[in-house]
Amino acid sequence: MNIGIVGASGYSGEVLLSLLLDHPNISLSTVTSRTLAGKSVESVFPHLRNRGGGLKFTISDPDQLAADPDLDLVFLALPHGVASEYAIPLCKSGKKVIDLSADFRLNSSEIYEDYYGHPHPFPNWLEKSAYVIPEITDDGWQNNRLIAAPGCYPTSILVPLLPLLKNNIIDGSGIVINSMSGVSGAGKKLAEDYLYCERNESVKAYGLVKHRHLSEIEEQLTLAAKKEIVIQFTPHLIPINRGIATTITIANTGNCLNEAYEVWNELYGEKPFISVLESGQTPDTKYVFQTNRIDFSATYDPRTESLLITSAEDNLMKGAAGQAIQIMNLWCGYEETAGLL
Amino acid sequence: MNIGIVGASGYSGEVLLSLLLDHPNISLSTVTSRTLAGKSVESVFPHLRNRGGGLKFTISDPDQLAADPDLDLVFLALPHGVASEYAIPLCKSGKKVIDLSADFRLNSSEIYEDYYGHPHPFPNWLEKSAYVIPEITDDGWQNNRLIAAPGCYPTSILVPLLPLLKNNIIDGSGIVINSMSGVSGAGKKLAEDYLYCERNESVKAYGLVKHRHLSEIEEQLTLAAKKEIVIQFTPHLIPINRGIATTITIANTGNCLNEAYEVWNELYGEKPFISVLESGQTPDTKYVFQTNRIDFSATYDPRTESLLITSAEDNLMKGAAGQAIQIMNLWCGYEETAGLL
Amino acid sequence: MNIGIVGASGYSGEVLLSLLLDHPNISLSTVTSRTLAGKSVESVFPHLRNRGGGLKFTISDPDQLAADPDLDLVFLALPHGVASEYAIPLCKSGKKVIDLSADFRLNSSEIYEDYYGHPHPFPNWLEKSAYVIPEITDDGWQNNRLIAAPGCYPTSILVPLLPLLKNNIIDGSGIVINSMSGVSGAGKKLAEDYLYCERNESVKAYGLVKHRHLSEIEEQLTLAAKKEIVIQFTPHLIPINRGIATTITIANTGNCLNEAYEVWNELYGEKPFISVLESGQTPDTKYVFQTNRIDFSATYDPRTESLLITSAEDNLMKGAAGQAIQIMNLWCGYEETAGLL
Amino acid sequence: MNIGIVGASGYSGEVLLSLLLDHPNISLSTVTSRTLAGKSVESVFPHLRNRGGGLKFTISDPDQLAADPDLDLVFLALPHGVASEYAIPLCKSGKKVIDLSADFRLNSSEIYEDYYGHPHPFPNWLEKSAYVIPEITDDGWQNNRLIAAPGCYPTSILVPLLPLLKNNIIDGSGIVINSMSGVSGAGKKLAEDYLYCERNESVKAYGLVKHRHLSEIEEQLTLAAKKEIVIQFTPHLIPINRGIATTITIANTGNCLNEAYEVWNELYGEKPFISVLESGQTPDTKYVFQTNRIDFSATYDPRTESLLITSAEDNLMKGAAGQAIQIMNLWCGYEETAGLL
Repeated sequence: MNIGIVGASGYSGEVLLSLLLDHPNISLSTVTSRTLAGKSVESVFPHLRNRGGGLKFTISDPDQLAADPDLDLVFLALPHGVASEYAIPLCKSGKKVIDLSADFRLNSSEIYEDYYGHPHPFPNWLEKSAYVIPEITDDGWQNNRLIAAPGCYPTSILVPLLPLLKNNIIDGSGIVINSMSGVSGAGKKLAEDYLYCERNESVKAYGLVKHRHLSEIEEQLTLAAKKEIVIQFTPHLIPINRGIATTITIANTGNCLNEAYEVWNELYGEKPFISVLESGQTPDTKYVFQTNRIDFSATYDPRTESLLITSAEDNLMKGAAGQAIQIMNLWCGYEETAGLL
Repeated sequence: MNIGIVGASGYSGEVLLSLLLDHPNISLSTVTSRTLAGKSVESVFPHLRNRGGGLKFTISDPDQLAADPDLDLVFLALPHGVASEYAIPLCKSGKKVIDLSADFRLNSSEIYEDYYGHPHPFPNWLEKSAYVIPEITDDGWQNNRLIAAPGCYPTSILVPLLPLLKNNIIDGSGIVINSMSGVSGAGKKLAEDYLYCERNESVKAYGLVKHRHLSEIEEQLTLAAKKEIVIQFTPHLIPINRGIATTITIANTGNCLNEAYEVWNELYGEKPFISVLESGQTPDTKYVFQTNRIDFSATYDPRTESLLITSAEDNLMKGAAGQAIQIMNLWCGYEETAGLL
Repeated sequence: MNIGIVGASGYSGEVLLSLLLDHPNISLSTVTSRTLAGKSVESVFPHLRNRGGGLKFTISDPDQLAADPDLDLVFLALPHGVASEYAIPLCKSGKKVIDLSADFRLNSSEIYEDYYGHPHPFPNWLEKSAYVIPEITDDGWQNNRLIAAPGCYPTSILVPLLPLLKNNIIDGSGIVINSMSGVSGAGKKLAEDYLYCERNESVKAYGLVKHRHLSEIEEQLTLAAKKEIVIQFTPHLIPINRGIATTITIANTGNCLNEAYEVWNELYGEKPFISVLESGQTPDTKYVFQTNRIDFSATYDPRTESLLITSAEDNLMKGAAGQAIQIMNLWCGYEETAGLL
Repeated sequence: MNIGIVGASGYSGEVLLSLLLDHPNISLSTVTSRTLAGKSVESVFPHLRNRGGGLKFTISDPDQLAADPDLDLVFLALPHGVASEYAIPLCKSGKKVIDLSADFRLNSSEIYEDYYGHPHPFPNWLEKSAYVIPEITDDGWQNNRLIAAPGCYPTSILVPLLPLLKNNIIDGSGIVINSMSGVSGAGKKLAEDYLYCERNESVKAYGLVKHRHLSEIEEQLTLAAKKEIVIQFTPHLIPINRGIATTITIANTGNCLNEAYEVWNELYGEKPFISVLESGQTPDTKYVFQTNRIDFSATYDPRTESLLITSAEDNLMKGAAGQAIQIMNLWCGYEETAGLL
């Protein structure tokens, strides 16, 4: 298989590149970037010195990429709104596409318009694409040509939470979620807010009360629960490079801790990238740094009769590039862990 | 007034020292520390070079301090459990005492025993002492000899939340609080968990589900609401030195945003150390760094019909030493802001 | 005195603003910024909430500022090359000007052209201006209209080193200087290199081998030594917000430690902003954080027969805004420490 | 081959563990730690979840380890002074030993006593052991039973510098070295100096003027130059977890840049773990983070007629555990890069 990465200049693109260069089953043949075209991968990402094998960035043209007969699967690591311009021609020309942007994560074009402020440019492609968290999504997604890799916040939330709704362990009310993200989650944006001196020694909530990832989280929870789920989600920005910690509070569940663990252990017990920790063990982003793992655990608070779940992941790995490669592995019949351990 | 600090070797002690050295109305005559006795303040805290005026640490003996005729008011910056051994003899000898520990923050000895695992050593002193957040606590606290300065998390929570309960803007149900604290909040403890390499690039929840500060928060909320309030509180540790950001979610309040702001503006509008920010402005710990200010704002989420409050403070200032000096200022008839701007 | 700050949107400007708002002797009447004109100081720098007194940014027009009869002294916190366009008209209209940029730091227009790549726009003003480190510069500088405040690296180097040359304690050969600077030293530049994720967890040398500050350092050393001094200077960028640590190695001095300390103690013993530490005590940037102090000490290495000096300062205080205010204080006859302690 | 790690609780031990668990050629059979005996590797280092394969820490007894017939090669990740108590019995029982401590790095017992303050406990073993930087050390070291892996600072210095002396590109005079190290370089020590709040936002020189690593650096340079080399070495502590940046200034070399690069390219051109960067490219610790690579480049300063070299490595990889495994690979006939890419 010949693999391409379109838009590889950002943080997710860099991690995709680094992982795919060492992947045992594929050949990374194309890496594009408008701004970096002509430069070698090693010169742009000196972290990859001695590993880039002469690979160079090429220009990013949708039609040209679609016409490339040697390209079998393409990762899109492009800004939201730009990815769709590539996804459609690539899919039409028969290539597999894994899109790391938010362009095809939603099923509903109404919700898209509500959160993104404009109609979806290709609404009929929303149902032709699949939103895939490999450990959760029902089989059959492999039949699509276009896979939307989930966002970083959603992954940290849906992995522990969705099975509880699907199995009626909780009824979907009273869910409050607070997440803390490292700065790479914002991408490599030249904005004052992301300068070193502005983020160092600082913590703040942001994106109140309708962060775009909320649309994706609620749609998935609603599909799983087969009824409308509305949650409270507040993201925070903290001074680390990589990592998301999420704390989920579910009010008035009664003591469903054992039932929750049964569902999780059944579903995730054999999964290589999900660690269900014993109640009382706390996930920490440092333990999942640069791994494709998500760690989580839960506690029951008898005082409030509520369930507490805390999770940790690397936002660029299980939250972006790592999970995208995991999807590729399963889609193409490779070992699920190939290139990821 | 001659002022003493007992146990000035920790982070709160250092800030107390730094602020009191420049305070216009008092004389800092005594600074004690078992481990630092004999050393000069400037050698221990080189930050204070050229400001320490020859002051030296002396030994910490409760009876000796109590017998010192030149000492009018004493700050206790001691570990929980140790402070009470000093507070009683100092109070008995007629000195004013401001205790930064948790020893006298609770009214109820039952709650104390529940959270601290042993009976309170001086339960009858719990009612002789006052828990004081100057902007909130009812007048009359000045008549006590012993003042308990609030904890860092409680201050960041009670300042915005307590008036809403007192004024029946909210009914006290559905309160979920997530706080993120800098590492100095844990004190200057020699434990692996607080080493640079362990906390840098890491974020985690801790203290689930019954952090000790919870007792103090709920008791105050319960007193204000005149009914039992039970909340969900989850603290997190993040890699900054100083600062606490708190996010409070209150479910199903209906749109009480205007009423909340009216109460806050009425109560805090003229207060020098509380900034009620417009809805939509986000507090950030960097903006309150090294100030005695707490910044907070609120938003109404029509989707969930819930109220969201976010606050930020410097845990060593408004969350500890700064607020303790603010208490002294009011207690002794100085300008509220003396030594704090 | 009515004071103005031109170009107050950067890091030095912010510190100037914060310090001047509380300065006991002056009135801060004008704060300009092309990009921020019309906004209030408190909204741009929320750190200053409750302290800005309604002050607003105005536009930056050299002629308009020069014509303002109510402006007595102006700080220029502008990029290099821009400052001179303001300095000349302001001086000509009779105002005192303290320029924090590099535009007038050199005496020699040849050296300026060599380091900046183009002729100095106002070469005859180079001799009408004075380069002032208050503890070092000879009396008489007060008679100028235009004062160039020194750069951050030069201050950390010249304070310990210059007196040794002036007093022939060392002969000026074999000087190797390595400095480590926090990221604010680069200013508030929107460049990828200064994004949080790029600087966090990173250290590197930069500006080899002819950093612009070198011109200023060598010119001052040469003037003091009355012979040409050539040094090796290598700056490094490290992940802290504020602070410069400098290590100076002087080869083959023989044991001149006592003589060096005699000169320093004689010159700096009574100076409020210079702490000459005992040999063996190590300066640390954290001890000078947010102070206008420079701490330094020296050691003699008998193995190499060389002298080692290490210094630490806050690059935005003694390295920029603090020192500029110290200059104003002395120039205008205020207490040297006014507004700085 | 069955491999053991003795004293695996520290930072180097953790990296050794992580790398050896995935090494394709060996079996990690024994991991010891006095304090952690009985615990599973995964519980102590949650980073290794799902990778530890049930491995548990066992007690550290020299004789017991020496008597273990299934142990072929042992890494000692012990404090200086303790390692030798294990090294001798293990070697005597026929096992290969790679010692990461400083116990056997010197050839001269006189220098050892000078720097460590007491006689070497096993001076005759100093010549039976080899100090090995694989890219530099002459063939034949493989015949020893005991290999001393170099220190972190020495590696960052000797790789670029030693060949210049060996090939008479420089004469060995005028060498000034400044290094900046991340905090993990100090090990996992419970000392106030290494607490998060003490190191965060701080930079300082330390270990003036006779840091212990100096003995090892000078001895190696002296052996290479065949005359006594004396250098100036100043280490600094900076707030990053991992990484060392080193700046080497060599006075009055004349323009030997081309000759230096010829030697380096000849020696290191094909080496997988050394990147000789073009003059003008700056090494950065972030580019070698978690790699076993050292990056370096050089510049000639015509003003001072001096040579400047800057290097960067990960102190726990090429500066400790990574290089130790590289040594094992070469010693045991595996691919040099096995387990390291």
